[in-house]
Amino acid sequence: MAELILHQDPRSGNCYKIALTAALLGIPLSIRDYDIMQGETRTPEFLARVNANGRIPVLQIGDRFLPESNAACWFLAQGSDLVPDDRFAQADVLRWMFFEQYNHEPNVATLRFWLRFVGQDRLSEAQKAQIPARRAAGEAALKLMDEHLAGRDWFVGTGATLADIALFAYTHVCEQGCFALDDYPAVSAWLDRMCALPRFVPMES
Amino acid sequence: MAELILHQDPRSGNCYKIALTAALLGIPLSIRDYDIMQGETRTPEFLARVNANGRIPVLQIGDRFLPESNAACWFLAQGSDLVPDDRFAQADVLRWMFFEQYNHEPNVATLRFWLRFVGQDRLSEAQKAQIPARRAAGEAALKLMDEHLAGRDWFVGTGATLADIALFAYTHVCEQGCFALDDYPAVSAWLDRMCALPRFVPMES
Repeated sequence: MAELILHQDPRSGNCYKIALTAALLGIPLSIRDYDIMQGETRTPEFLARVNANGRIPVLQIGDRFLPESNAACWFLAQGSDLVPDDRFAQADVLRWMFFEQYNHEPNVATLRFWLRFVGQDRLSEAQKAQIPARRAAGEAALKLMDEHLAGRDWFVGTGATLADIALFAYTHVCEQGCFALDDYPAVSAWLDRMCALPRFVPMES
Repeated sequence: MAELILHQDPRSGNCYKIALTAALLGIPLSIRDYDIMQGETRTPEFLARVNANGRIPVLQIGDRFLPESNAACWFLAQGSDLVPDDRFAQADVLRWMFFEQYNHEPNVATLRFWLRFVGQDRLSEAQKAQIPARRAAGEAALKLMDEHLAGRDWFVGTGATLADIALFAYTHVCEQGCFALDDYPAVSAWLDRMCALPRFVPMES
């Protein structure tokens, strides 16, 4: 395979998903760090060469660039146990990955970013006004996950898949956005199972 | 294959994606309509049986239920030309599908829903306050699509894939959210190509 380079900010859960997938599969990745707080993913060079959308992560495969965290995980994990072959199970993994990007990340990750990295005092009025709705939507996402995990160990089937990796990334640091894991016991037990996977690596920050 | 039932609201572009995928592939679907404006996807029966997330579309496959529009399209299209076998191309299709759910749908589809179906006069103050940011983000998504399509016919490779279907659904009705297709000539030409696909079916509303 061509050299793989992860263009990332180490504080980003979306970037961590890719690093964790690669680690679990034993795939070596080179790392190129950017500081999103300094606008390093909005420079003309980044927009022209790496991602016109101005976002990380981007997985570089030789001279090709693949944005979107869950798509990059898919590239790495195709053909492995992290992506089931069964037609329904494979679509069900994607079901949870789309749920993650639509219902979970915009709420759970955004509140973590605002409260831990930007800081409550530096939020705009428009951002402050959005906190209650994002809090409620984040709680709803965590509740749905908790109910799904009651009585089962993994999101799809009987082992870890990309569905678990995608949802683990921001869930395991949700308390940095002032969500309380104690409210979600099945989620908490699943987080422990994730951390016990062979070749698991923690998030850097 | 087990009987396929699409639980849908015919005004939803997310539902239309699945109907269009099935039509292009010649797969018969039964339809079960709900009126989301009347809360028909939030009833206790719907939440318990069809989707705990209270949303449509859901693709029912025999006695199993698959939420998330793009996951349902994936279920239908696996093994067809709409999902490339090539490792990078397959991940790149997903890249655009995740872009659609994260950058496009929350902006382009939400403004269509608010302006066409709810009505400007009936929006809450919180919704009205969000219009400028969603407008700017929707324009940015359409601009990125337009730049990508300049000089190429389809989002990935040399034929239509699920990436095109996912992005077509709300783009082709974006003027209902007061986006101007005239600003995006490459997108407009691509919309025409989509409508000319064999077995293409229009959205119902």
